Amino acid sequence: MGQKKREVQNKLMKGLLDLVILQFLNSNPMHGYQIISSIRKNFGVYFGPSTIYPLLNGLEEKGYIRSQWDLNNERPRKVYELTNEGQGLLNYTENTLNHICRKISNIGLSNNLVNGLNGILQRPMCSTAKNTVKK
Amino acid sequence: MGQKKREVQNKLMKGLLDLVILQFLNSNPMHGYQIISSIRKNFGVYFGPSTIYPLLNGLEEKGYIRSQWDLNNERPRKVYELTNEGQGLLNYTENTLNHICRKISNIGLSNNLVNGLNGILQRPMCSTAKNTVKK
Repeated sequence: MGQKKREVQNKLMKGLLDLVILQFLNSNPMHGYQIISSIRKNFGVYFGPSTIYPLLNGLEEKGYIRSQWDLNNERPRKVYELTNEGQGLLNYTENTLNHICRKISNIGLSNNLVNGLNGILQRPMCSTAKNTVKK
Repeated sequence: MGQKKREVQNKLMKGLLDLVILQFLNSNPMHGYQIISSIRKNFGVYFGPSTIYPLLNGLEEKGYIRSQWDLNNERPRKVYELTNEGQGLLNYTENTLNHICRKISNIGLSNNLVNGLNGILQRPMCSTAKNTVKK
């Protein structure tokens, strides 16, 4: 089911693109094309300018990222960076995703326990490593 | 940012609804209203019939779930259950989500390491617990 697998991957990624972009910009200021190629390089899926630029504009309008023109290149490029608000959104989105992932894995666990079906052996799907990494 | 938080939650959940539905049906056959109320109960977000039924229809058309009428109630209800194909999709989606989550947390790690900025202390966002739970 190669085509279907690609669909699943694209669908999941699409729902997480804001988070991915914020996470990239949390590490380094980047211009749009860098974000597009980083997504392709890191995740093996391609989202083009017509997907990424509207997301960047939306995030900028809401104050989560800000941009400035980098004129040190042959061709001037808009470089995006995270604002404090964006940092807050990134943290909140990460935590919410972790929470949802734990809940999803608990569906299997709790219902299997109710059914007496190997509940204890069910593999948690996604879990936060918060408790294992000391700050 | 209460309204914004709700938006983040809804957006993330929307991207994961297929997975959530498959995971519910992996535990128990359920009818549509049960799925709607289980989502509200487990995740604290409401997705109504106009969201859930088209998703159920789509999953059924693609052969991932099948339905039959339960006539043992006052009102006949369509009960959905997972097919083998659906089980395969669920496993693949779980694995893909884990993979994406690990990649997202690696963005922070690797870029921070490159920048020499506390890379080692960065909290992984989402991680699979595969290796810690023995089958």
